[in-house]
Amino acid sequence: MKDQNCFYCMDTDKRRELMTEITSLKLADLYLFRDQTYTGRCVLKFRDHKTDFSQLTDEENLEFAKELRQVAAALTKAFHPDKINYAVYGDLVPHLHIHIVPKYKGGPQWGGPFTDTGPKKYLSDAEYQELIAKIRAAL
Amino acid sequence: MKDQNCFYCMDTDKRRELMTEITSLKLADLYLFRDQTYTGRCVLKFRDHKTDFSQLTDEENLEFAKELRQVAAALTKAFHPDKINYAVYGDLVPHLHIHIVPKYKGGPQWGGPFTDTGPKKYLSDAEYQELIAKIRAAL
Repeated sequence: MKDQNCFYCMDTDKRRELMTEITSLKLADLYLFRDQTYTGRCVLKFRDHKTDFSQLTDEENLEFAKELRQVAAALTKAFHPDKINYAVYGDLVPHLHIHIVPKYKGGPQWGGPFTDTGPKKYLSDAEYQELIAKIRAAL
Repeated sequence: MKDQNCFYCMDTDKRRELMTEITSLKLADLYLFRDQTYTGRCVLKFRDHKTDFSQLTDEENLEFAKELRQVAAALTKAFHPDKINYAVYGDLVPHLHIHIVPKYKGGPQWGGPFTDTGPKKYLSDAEYQELIAKIRAAL
């Protein structure tokens, strides 16, 4: 089910400004976050318009958790982070999506919560495509 | 299994400075975060020493997800937040634990990621116990 007012459901320019499609899994879509301050940072979006885990069935919850693990394993394989952070915010865009943020010893915000308030790190299209190819190969 | 170097496993003073026990669920322990900038903020800790979702079995993953949903529902019932944020950081303390952070329209960081960098809001012991009683009653 789509919510006509939700940029995740409607796949608007706003969504495309923030992230680029990597692949579609069974229940979720995986995107590369454009701000690559944290190399390999992705967003895993539950495809249907749900606004909290509590709205998922047990089967959906388990499958979504599996897909999350699959993505984390792929990012680990592709980029060798020292830890992965996860976050669900979405106060204003409540469509269920998880930020998956690889962290690196000595890298940005190592040892603390990752943040979106620092300077952004944007890449060239070719560099984005290279990251996307690495993630696809590792999935 | 416990890790002797992990403050979550060993239940040290450091753990107690940060959070107070609410209850134990089947696989996870629930704590009230001492900084109550976000009313009802809790930590749900997987009891065994696991450092990422990928180390859980399917059964553990499903049960942990159920317990997370149970806590979110209890916080919603007790405090009526407008959204709940979730985060897993733990770069330096990798024992699997989820920050569960109720957000309120017009309240701190509404519309953006919650943050731990602002001023803390500590309560009296009686006030903590009142919050804990509310959460227990709602679970």
